[in-house]
Amino acid sequence: MKRKTVACPVEEAAYVLNNPWKILIVRELCNGPRRFGELRTSVNNISPRVLSGSLRDMEDNGLLTKKIYAEVPPHTEYALTSLGQGLITIVNELARWGLKYQEADL
Amino acid sequence: MKRKTVACPVEEAAYVLNNPWKILIVRELCNGPRRFGELRTSVNNISPRVLSGSLRDMEDNGLLTKKIYAEVPPHTEYALTSLGQGLITIVNELARWGLKYQEADL
Repeated sequence: MKRKTVACPVEEAAYVLNNPWKILIVRELCNGPRRFGELRTSVNNISPRVLSGSLRDMEDNGLLTKKIYAEVPPHTEYALTSLGQGLITIVNELARWGLKYQEADL
Repeated sequence: MKRKTVACPVEEAAYVLNNPWKILIVRELCNGPRRFGELRTSVNNISPRVLSGSLRDMEDNGLLTKKIYAEVPPHTEYALTSLGQGLITIVNELARWGLKYQEADL
């Protein structure tokens, strides 16, 4: 997804986080860099195609960096940038709200 | 979308807000009840089908109520429940982060 500037900051944020997986990727990266395979395991039910597309979007949008280690076998690590770290507050708020939702008698 | 309980509250929240339009619907309803047509106008580029599907999901998940006024012509109003109002904090955090994103030199 290419960057597009819209007037409203809420809309901009919603546009950048255009799928719920990205929230879960941020949740995983809160605690430090992760490899592709680690993300795949910890983000429930995500397909490799959706995971790599989401990571590419997030890299394009400046939320994370991708570092390739030229070892044998080579591996890749993803880490939040400082812009991406700004999303940790939102993940925490979602956690708080998610608990209320789970407790609600619907 | 039917309700499904998952262990992690962040995942639960991401599951409930499974598309970015829902964030924008909450943004609109922050200031009080809105009619379908008002939401359609204020939520940029949303199709009537996606809007009605999102509103139905949000009603099923206890985030909003739908009130039908049997006038001539009849009209329908949507309002946040107290659970839905809990999302206002998240919308505010997204606004704060969206501003940082807009200002970032990417």
